[in-house]
Amino acid sequence: MIKVGIVGITGFTGLEIVKILLNHNIASIEHVCSRSEVDKKISDIYPQFAGVFDKKIEAIDVDKLNDVDVVFLALPHTVSASFAKKLYGKTRIVDLSADFRLKDSREYEEWYKIDHIAKELLVDSVYGLVELNREQVKNANLVANPGCYATSVILAVAPVAKYAVGTIISDSKSGVSGAGRGLKEGLQFCEVNENFKAYSIYGHRHISEMEQELRKINQNVKIEFIPHLLPIQRGILSTVYIKVNKELDFVKLYKDFYNKDYFVRVVDTPPTINNVKGTNFCDLYVYFDKRTDTLIVVSVIDNLIKGASGQAVQNMNVMFGIDEKEGLGGYSYYP
Amino acid sequence: MIKVGIVGITGFTGLEIVKILLNHNIASIEHVCSRSEVDKKISDIYPQFAGVFDKKIEAIDVDKLNDVDVVFLALPHTVSASFAKKLYGKTRIVDLSADFRLKDSREYEEWYKIDHIAKELLVDSVYGLVELNREQVKNANLVANPGCYATSVILAVAPVAKYAVGTIISDSKSGVSGAGRGLKEGLQFCEVNENFKAYSIYGHRHISEMEQELRKINQNVKIEFIPHLLPIQRGILSTVYIKVNKELDFVKLYKDFYNKDYFVRVVDTPPTINNVKGTNFCDLYVYFDKRTDTLIVVSVIDNLIKGASGQAVQNMNVMFGIDEKEGLGGYSYYP
Amino acid sequence: MIKVGIVGITGFTGLEIVKILLNHNIASIEHVCSRSEVDKKISDIYPQFAGVFDKKIEAIDVDKLNDVDVVFLALPHTVSASFAKKLYGKTRIVDLSADFRLKDSREYEEWYKIDHIAKELLVDSVYGLVELNREQVKNANLVANPGCYATSVILAVAPVAKYAVGTIISDSKSGVSGAGRGLKEGLQFCEVNENFKAYSIYGHRHISEMEQELRKINQNVKIEFIPHLLPIQRGILSTVYIKVNKELDFVKLYKDFYNKDYFVRVVDTPPTINNVKGTNFCDLYVYFDKRTDTLIVVSVIDNLIKGASGQAVQNMNVMFGIDEKEGLGGYSYYP
Amino acid sequence: MIKVGIVGITGFTGLEIVKILLNHNIASIEHVCSRSEVDKKISDIYPQFAGVFDKKIEAIDVDKLNDVDVVFLALPHTVSASFAKKLYGKTRIVDLSADFRLKDSREYEEWYKIDHIAKELLVDSVYGLVELNREQVKNANLVANPGCYATSVILAVAPVAKYAVGTIISDSKSGVSGAGRGLKEGLQFCEVNENFKAYSIYGHRHISEMEQELRKINQNVKIEFIPHLLPIQRGILSTVYIKVNKELDFVKLYKDFYNKDYFVRVVDTPPTINNVKGTNFCDLYVYFDKRTDTLIVVSVIDNLIKGASGQAVQNMNVMFGIDEKEGLGGYSYYP
Repeated sequence: MIKVGIVGITGFTGLEIVKILLNHNIASIEHVCSRSEVDKKISDIYPQFAGVFDKKIEAIDVDKLNDVDVVFLALPHTVSASFAKKLYGKTRIVDLSADFRLKDSREYEEWYKIDHIAKELLVDSVYGLVELNREQVKNANLVANPGCYATSVILAVAPVAKYAVGTIISDSKSGVSGAGRGLKEGLQFCEVNENFKAYSIYGHRHISEMEQELRKINQNVKIEFIPHLLPIQRGILSTVYIKVNKELDFVKLYKDFYNKDYFVRVVDTPPTINNVKGTNFCDLYVYFDKRTDTLIVVSVIDNLIKGASGQAVQNMNVMFGIDEKEGLGGYSYYP
Repeated sequence: MIKVGIVGITGFTGLEIVKILLNHNIASIEHVCSRSEVDKKISDIYPQFAGVFDKKIEAIDVDKLNDVDVVFLALPHTVSASFAKKLYGKTRIVDLSADFRLKDSREYEEWYKIDHIAKELLVDSVYGLVELNREQVKNANLVANPGCYATSVILAVAPVAKYAVGTIISDSKSGVSGAGRGLKEGLQFCEVNENFKAYSIYGHRHISEMEQELRKINQNVKIEFIPHLLPIQRGILSTVYIKVNKELDFVKLYKDFYNKDYFVRVVDTPPTINNVKGTNFCDLYVYFDKRTDTLIVVSVIDNLIKGASGQAVQNMNVMFGIDEKEGLGGYSYYP
Repeated sequence: MIKVGIVGITGFTGLEIVKILLNHNIASIEHVCSRSEVDKKISDIYPQFAGVFDKKIEAIDVDKLNDVDVVFLALPHTVSASFAKKLYGKTRIVDLSADFRLKDSREYEEWYKIDHIAKELLVDSVYGLVELNREQVKNANLVANPGCYATSVILAVAPVAKYAVGTIISDSKSGVSGAGRGLKEGLQFCEVNENFKAYSIYGHRHISEMEQELRKINQNVKIEFIPHLLPIQRGILSTVYIKVNKELDFVKLYKDFYNKDYFVRVVDTPPTINNVKGTNFCDLYVYFDKRTDTLIVVSVIDNLIKGASGQAVQNMNVMFGIDEKEGLGGYSYYP
Repeated sequence: MIKVGIVGITGFTGLEIVKILLNHNIASIEHVCSRSEVDKKISDIYPQFAGVFDKKIEAIDVDKLNDVDVVFLALPHTVSASFAKKLYGKTRIVDLSADFRLKDSREYEEWYKIDHIAKELLVDSVYGLVELNREQVKNANLVANPGCYATSVILAVAPVAKYAVGTIISDSKSGVSGAGRGLKEGLQFCEVNENFKAYSIYGHRHISEMEQELRKINQNVKIEFIPHLLPIQRGILSTVYIKVNKELDFVKLYKDFYNKDYFVRVVDTPPTINNVKGTNFCDLYVYFDKRTDTLIVVSVIDNLIKGASGQAVQNMNVMFGIDEKEGLGGYSYYP
């Protein structure tokens, strides 16, 4: 049994980890911790757990977390780094924040406009996109769980990255849960519902992760990335436009590339968010438009699962050498 | 291992049975049958199953269904009865249609405006609301799975039915999946979205089930029931107004009544559909308004799970003497 | 030309008054005032007005508001009363808050749990439900614009109030804009969307208005009222259940009652919110269920128009002796 | 008074023309015609018009339509052409179908896969994007009203078209009303709601209009256009990515270009669909991303108004020499 601590339980990603692990046969939730709501039962915050999972929320006490095999940090960036420093070496860590995703702390400081307070851990962190970095994840002590948008875009581009020329454009659209559970201007129902908008047009932080990982394949990759807010709960669809320097059987290329990856499906009809909502799958559709010489890739994930908590558990499974799919057997929320 | 056949796979209730049974450790899906889409893979209709559950859809062949322990009939009424006749005695049956819910075929013919073609089976059918009829379900060969609205209302009223006087009013609101997956006027996105309406004001068929079951407790029960269409995928919330002939500790009464029932929770704060969406729970909230001498009960279920396919699996579990909860361990879809 | 001041421009009801008056041929907006956002242009807050209506927001200065014929107060209760005190006698007032709706200040203090700071104005205030109180509105200096739920319920019950016996039950459902534009817990997109709930089960403040107005017709009226939150922008649908002491031609009764009222339509098919969304209409549908001896009335309005700002302008039109419909000629937002 | 006939009244674009013209001071609706629902009142189909606009629907009789000054054809393509042939010369025509948008009938036949049955009228038709072709519209007898997507993209690109190099990418997202009012697979509430998808990936017909109009400015324009289906009623947002051959003050360029155009606003913050929903505006936001040397233009319209019926009335206003804004003074549906 893998003993698990979850830190940061009042947000959506912490909640999703709980839901996944309650159906995981080889992991047990030992601690649920938070900076607020301490001593309440988790079912006081989330009434759906009434009578099902009534564990008490603990304060975040690094000493108490010693007895677990792995800690999930579901905290804002910098807060996460501060706890990672204290926990590092005592337990393995899957960090869902952005703090350890960028290997170069200057990149972090440029995009996040804040000092990195745990630079010394970066050398040991692994970018936990299992499909690209499975071997490193196996032995990692500190896994940086990828950003939701980054997951959707990197998986869409990786197979063809070495053939890409010019700027890759990813027009991405996300459900509202990606913005978290807190009370924020612009996320009220009356603002989001029946509306749609682009945001972070001047540069979204996930660009840095995307370029970091894809430049491992092709140093020249440059991404133009515009995110948009969909009036739905969950799901990301990225439409990616790539100029390539040769015409290939791209469908075969993608199928071969993800041959061993259960959670990436190269599908034959354009995927909808319903394909993957509630699951850890990333569905990819590939079409080469001869009229404009543009490769179009449509990528869908559930932002909270493959884009966050599901991928985090997938990382844990790989770290502990168990079946990558364990606990991740949910089926689409559709209808 | 309980061997299962599912008949009627192209609708939402058939789909939900599949999703539930894929996570059921003691049942295996042997056949998925349908009147249409035969020989297609189930993932051709529901792309979310690609690579996960690719079983081929078979025509409905009664002889082939001989090898299973139980058949779920997820068919329209009368179609269901026609297959039930042929299957009866060869396998146990959980019928999700309305065909065997009303013990008196005259009631059926009055409310459904059609002859009952399998009256002879009615004597042996059991109304499969486990919380009220668990003992009869155990040995049943033919379980009539309750209607979604009926489930929500009967569970709300049963504990207090013997104290009820006058007309009980249930104002119920359902998500759109309750109307099924077919193409129907009035269910297009542009008609339902950002809209709301009452329907079946002249009398909805589920009234007959409600009164049948509640009159077992109090012969004088009369229900005024108005259903409404919510612009959401799934969930029913019924607000029930009951005049009672004595003032009691109603919360205690309800908690005692459902003491042994895992899937009914008497909750301390008014429940929302998020409490139960994606689960087999029915959450009940009880408040006695002294100002008007009215008992108010708010009842929420997921119409496709506790209101249909989850309850059907719960019935199967009881019929086969296994843990009532098996396969039904899903957590709320929220967020 | 009627010169108008609007006080409280950053909320939805202030916004709607602007939108209506911009299409009003006999009124001109002289001042838009607010406690916050002063000196910004209204289009800075609401970008839809860019280049169309760029008036500057003024602080609320009672002396400056002297030059108008009427002031709309679109403010929270008690704040509204404080300004009404200062403006009273200098200009006519339509108050959209609850401050002057209840003629008995003790009722106000009981339901709103706060002292009434302008009791002296109550003697002169008129409850501005034009259909019931048109004559008084004509000469009023202070019109208390009815609550949105109250409008929907009073119009549904008034024609039959004198025949009502026992408790009248109104099960009402409102879109989210009824809760205003501010940032409030529970109104984030991820909480409201795909969800539904009852609230204020222990007693909603609008009950007091409903009973006050309906008791003018029948002293024994008692209302059990439960509001619910619909995941839509705007619209209220009330389903009202009434026991009556005689059976009449209720459709005719309703049509006769509202014979002179352009904005109340007694319709022949159950209305949906689409009937009235974006308009000042209240559509009523009446059905007597002989099976349970219950009169069912379905009432729909747009909560921000007939339930607030449209009704406020209708009141203004009546106060100034112009066509009641002026400025209120919008058509349903459907689709 | 401009006498108007509307042909094709049962669809959304016909409905919107009615709503706009009911608020138009210089036009009167003389006939509403349809192929179905003849002799019903328009309020029988659209209950929102009850008591407000109860005109009877007539069969489409070309001889009867002689007495009007202009006919709006709100019909499917080819059906529209067949009536245009008969009406041409007898009355001026604004055609909302695709039949007369492409000046080269071979383009039409290639994209629409059907013979053009009224080629002889093409020489005289004018592509009714007023902002680009105002002068020709003034004297036109046959105006081809642009497609909704085409409107959003052409207005976004036109000012910079002469500087564009390489493929222009438009990633566009539309509300569901763009697909019309009919019963179609894939447009049921349960399929669209909480979902999102790309469609027509192999080539959407509106590409031909876009390229036709933009090649008037720059012969080398090539468009990669992918439409997506948003789970909202109305609105289109296009995110357009353009490589340019020189860096300019693009905001100024756009503001100058649309200097005389009331209905195009170059806005200072990224627009949302709420900016324009319910109005005839197109809001454009322009940002040059130096990091990738890409000009990004965000364009929003209401697909049924500026993208269809509002633009049709704007065309009519120009054709008859009246104020271009007449009848188009609606304000955003937000909230």
